[in-house]
Amino acid sequence: MGFEEEVKARAAAIDEIIESFLAEEGDYQSTVIEAMNYSIRGGGKRIRPMLMQETYRLFGGNSVAIEYFMAAIEMIHTYSLVHDDLPCMDDDEYRRGRKTTHAVYGEAMATLAGDALLNFAAETALGAFDTDIEKERVGKAARIMFNKSGIYGMIGGQTADVEAEGKSAGEIKEELLTYIHENKTAALIEASMMVGGVLGGCNNVQLNTLEKIARNVGLAFQIQDDILDVTGTFEELGKPIGSDERNGKVTYVSIHGLEKAKADVEALSKEAIMLLHTLEGDNPFLEELLLSMIDRRK
Amino acid sequence: MGFEEEVKARAAAIDEIIESFLAEEGDYQSTVIEAMNYSIRGGGKRIRPMLMQETYRLFGGNSVAIEYFMAAIEMIHTYSLVHDDLPCMDDDEYRRGRKTTHAVYGEAMATLAGDALLNFAAETALGAFDTDIEKERVGKAARIMFNKSGIYGMIGGQTADVEAEGKSAGEIKEELLTYIHENKTAALIEASMMVGGVLGGCNNVQLNTLEKIARNVGLAFQIQDDILDVTGTFEELGKPIGSDERNGKVTYVSIHGLEKAKADVEALSKEAIMLLHTLEGDNPFLEELLLSMIDRRK
Repeated sequence: MGFEEEVKARAAAIDEIIESFLAEEGDYQSTVIEAMNYSIRGGGKRIRPMLMQETYRLFGGNSVAIEYFMAAIEMIHTYSLVHDDLPCMDDDEYRRGRKTTHAVYGEAMATLAGDALLNFAAETALGAFDTDIEKERVGKAARIMFNKSGIYGMIGGQTADVEAEGKSAGEIKEELLTYIHENKTAALIEASMMVGGVLGGCNNVQLNTLEKIARNVGLAFQIQDDILDVTGTFEELGKPIGSDERNGKVTYVSIHGLEKAKADVEALSKEAIMLLHTLEGDNPFLEELLLSMIDRRK
Repeated sequence: MGFEEEVKARAAAIDEIIESFLAEEGDYQSTVIEAMNYSIRGGGKRIRPMLMQETYRLFGGNSVAIEYFMAAIEMIHTYSLVHDDLPCMDDDEYRRGRKTTHAVYGEAMATLAGDALLNFAAETALGAFDTDIEKERVGKAARIMFNKSGIYGMIGGQTADVEAEGKSAGEIKEELLTYIHENKTAALIEASMMVGGVLGGCNNVQLNTLEKIARNVGLAFQIQDDILDVTGTFEELGKPIGSDERNGKVTYVSIHGLEKAKADVEALSKEAIMLLHTLEGDNPFLEELLLSMIDRRK
C-alpha cells in the first residue's frame, strides 16, 4: 500500500473509532444529537486523531484509552468549525463541499450543537478513566487538551482572528498573525501530539519536543491553508476559493507573498522532522504524515 | 446574623472564590477574557456553587478541591446564559438588570466567550488534581458535572426548549415541559449537589438521594421562575416581566395555572427536605437554602 492509500485506510479506521463514541439517538433532544453527528460525520482527513494515535504508537502505547481522546479532539475541532461557520462569525454556507451545520439545522441548533460537542468531548475524554491506563496520565492529558483548546490556545487565536477581520495589512503586525496561526490552528495540533505522548508515557523533555514539532507543523499547515486559498481549486479545498481575499482577510500570503510563504512552510516542516529524529522510537508513518501536511489537498 | 444576611455573606465569599479562578488579562485575546469576566461578574445568587459547598460540608469535606468545582459550575451556568441570550436563541438584551454579553461585546465575541467559559470550566475543574483530595473523586466529580451539563442534561433541555418555542399549549405535552425543566434547570442543580457529595466522599446510595433532592429543588426553582415571570416586578426579577408570554412561550403556569404551579413548588420542596433528612450529617443552612429557593426573588 502506498502512503496515500495508507492514510485513507487509517482515516477510515479512525472514522469507525469516532463513530463508536457518538451519542445515540436521544429523546426530546434528538435534533441536537443529529446536528452534532451531521457535523462530525462531515469528515476531513482526521489529521488530529491520526497524529495523536501515531505519536502514541511512537512511545509504544497500546491501551484503548487513546481512542477516547482521539474522538474527543475531533469533537473539539468539529465544534470550533461549527461555531466558526456561524453567520456572526465567518458566515460560511459550505465546508468540505457540503452545507454547514447552521445552514441545515438553523443558527440556534448549530450554536447548541457546537456547545454540545465541546461538552461531549469532556465527557468522552474522561471516559478513559474506565480503561486500564494509569489514571494520572488521563488527568494530565485532559488538562493539556483543554488548555490548548481554550483562551491560551485555540479560542485565543479565534478571538484575535475575529478582531483582525477587516483590518488592513498595515494595521496587522506579523506578530499578531503569528499569534493567530499559533493558536487558532497549531494549538490543537500540539494538543494532539502531546496527548498521544502523555498517554504513551513520554517524559517532560519529550513532551516539550512534541509541542515544538506540533507548533511548527501547525504553523506550516495554516500557512498552507492561506496558500491554497489563493492557488487551489474548489475540488482541492472543498470550499470556495479566494474567500480570504473577498472577506478582506489579512493572511500570511497577503503579508509575506506567495514565495516566502511556500519557503517558510518548507523550513518549518524540515525543522519539525529534525526534532522528531531527536526522539527515541521510530514511526516512519508519522514522519511521512507530518511531511504530507505541507502538501495537503482537501 | 439572619438567614438572608448569611446567604449574602456566603455569596460574597463565593464571589471571591470565583474571582480567584478567573483568567488574568491576556495578550491578543484580552477581549474574550474581558467578555468572560463581564459575564461571570454579572452575579446572581451563586446558588449552584453554594449548594455544592453546603453539600460538601454536609459530608464533612474540608479540601480546597471543592473551590475548583464551585468556580467551574458557575462558569458552565454562565456560559449557558451567554449563549441563551444570543439573538439566534432568546434574543435578550438585559439579564439581572444589566446588558447581556452580546449587547456589549457583539455576537461573535459572546459566542466565543461562552465557548471559552465552558472550556475554562474543564480546565478549572481538572486543576483540582493538584490538591490533596483523592484523585478518584476528582475524576468522578468531573464526569458527573459534564454529564449533567451535556446532551443528557442541560443542553438536552435547551434543545427541547428551542424546539418548543412558538408551539401552543395544545401541542406541548406535560411530559415535554417536565423534560425541559428537569434538564434545562434541574440538571445543573443536580450536578452541584452531586459533585459536592462525591468530593465529600458520599457513597452511591447517598449520591442517588442527592440527585433526587436536587431534581425536586431544580423543578421547583424553574416553576418558580415561570411564576415570577407572571407575578414579579423588574426589580425582583432583574429582567423584563412577561417576556415568556410575549414570546408565546408555553410555561408551567400557562399549562397548569398559577395555583397548581404554586402548590407543586411547595410539594416538591417538602419532598426534597424529607429526603435530605434521610441522609446522615446535619447542615441546617443547606436546608434553609433549599427552602428559600421556593420563595426567591432575583
